[in-house]
Amino acid sequence: MADRMKGDPQSALTPSQQARLDIREGRHTGTTRGFALGHVQCNLVILRQALAYEFLLYCQRNSRACPVLEVCDTGDPEPRRLAPGADLRTDLPRYAVYRQGERQPDLTDIRDLWEQDFVAFLIGSGITFDLALERAGVPTTRDRWVLRCTLPTEPAGRFRGPMVVTMRWLTPEQAITAVQVSARFPFNHGAPIHVGDPAAIGADLANPLFGPPVDKVRDGVVPVFWACGVTPQEAALAAKVDLMITHAPAHGFITDLEADKFCLP
Amino acid sequence: MADRMKGDPQSALTPSQQARLDIREGRHTGTTRGFALGHVQCNLVILRQALAYEFLLYCQRNSRACPVLEVCDTGDPEPRRLAPGADLRTDLPRYAVYRQGERQPDLTDIRDLWEQDFVAFLIGSGITFDLALERAGVPTTRDRWVLRCTLPTEPAGRFRGPMVVTMRWLTPEQAITAVQVSARFPFNHGAPIHVGDPAAIGADLANPLFGPPVDKVRDGVVPVFWACGVTPQEAALAAKVDLMITHAPAHGFITDLEADKFCLP
Repeated sequence: MADRMKGDPQSALTPSQQARLDIREGRHTGTTRGFALGHVQCNLVILRQALAYEFLLYCQRNSRACPVLEVCDTGDPEPRRLAPGADLRTDLPRYAVYRQGERQPDLTDIRDLWEQDFVAFLIGSGITFDLALERAGVPTTRDRWVLRCTLPTEPAGRFRGPMVVTMRWLTPEQAITAVQVSARFPFNHGAPIHVGDPAAIGADLANPLFGPPVDKVRDGVVPVFWACGVTPQEAALAAKVDLMITHAPAHGFITDLEADKFCLP
Repeated sequence: MADRMKGDPQSALTPSQQARLDIREGRHTGTTRGFALGHVQCNLVILRQALAYEFLLYCQRNSRACPVLEVCDTGDPEPRRLAPGADLRTDLPRYAVYRQGERQPDLTDIRDLWEQDFVAFLIGSGITFDLALERAGVPTTRDRWVLRCTLPTEPAGRFRGPMVVTMRWLTPEQAITAVQVSARFPFNHGAPIHVGDPAAIGADLANPLFGPPVDKVRDGVVPVFWACGVTPQEAALAAKVDLMITHAPAHGFITDLEADKFCLP
């Protein structure tokens, strides 16, 4: 598998291997949204080993927002279960680096930063069910925002803070379909956590973390909210940990796992 | 909630609170199978903090067998999320104590053993979906075994070993129903891992860990296998950790969570 990732022309790459190779070699530099569609995509969080237990516990206590799909062995950048042969230091198109809670310039390769006490967490992303939504008639390419809300998370050690949510505007029919489709992905946030009035969960429409300014009044559509995998990053930021490396928003990690086959890890 | 657990006659206890009180005060001493039916039941594993990260990681890597529903804070015997006010040192009817992998005499109260570096893990049990199976016409009170098999688990640190499975003999119709029903409980082992020939997964019919001797040949029924929450206990035993305390088989912890409502933790 590792040999195939090196680009041996004799062996065919699977779509996810090809996608990661294109990212590693700089041919794909943009968002992974819509890229290698149908594969489970993950959010990346890298922390030092000293924080790993508390962070894993925080994710366990908030598994709807933070479904952990793989934790690499300490010091190992290869996700051996979800993408054997891949390298989490090179195979995402863009990385966000935070020191003491302050975002540093983004990087496209973090090999120079890697240390032996780093632990890489892969957390399920809602992008995973985009293809299933599309197939069921729910559009996924627009009208989507990442927002802070006031729903609390369950703390663990130094990690705590409000939930981050993904919001989509959907017609009532699309909303009902979207509940059913996303519920089939319990390890990628699952069904929505709220539908209707954004104020009921204190959704901060004025300051989206991702997406254009939110148009508040729409006719014939209802806002639908999912717990979002950005939640644990926000908690780690608020804790001002000395170093955290994540994927840049919408620049996730493409696994070998096909979303259609994804049932339980 | 804690006050209500003290048995204040002025306040009504919920069925799960009453069940735990009966256990704590010695009125219920037997199996929890069929007791407070319809509530999520958990397997208990208590280990020292020094092992907590590796154990939690082992569970994450084998979540089908080891669905972690709650991890208490270090030194805290109260499962604040699943049963506020409960005490994991007294609220299970029987405890198994292992030192260096050797089982000691069972206890009905572990307050004298409790230390400040203990971490309690609650792991989802298949007993949780017994009521749903019964309602759907699948009998749950007999023909059930806990067996070792040869399917490997994904190691984490010192924890490794084969999967433990629960086996039931079911008619083909019951088996199909049981797949559908248990799949609705993805955080309590979910759907079966195998149906049919026990040899295909190396199920050790000759030496059941729980249940009577297995009658190998049956007409008109098929064996159905689920990943079992005893798996992580077996891994910890094989690792010969200095001290592990668990529930005694079929003497689990009754949570306040109603199984019918259980979707995501």
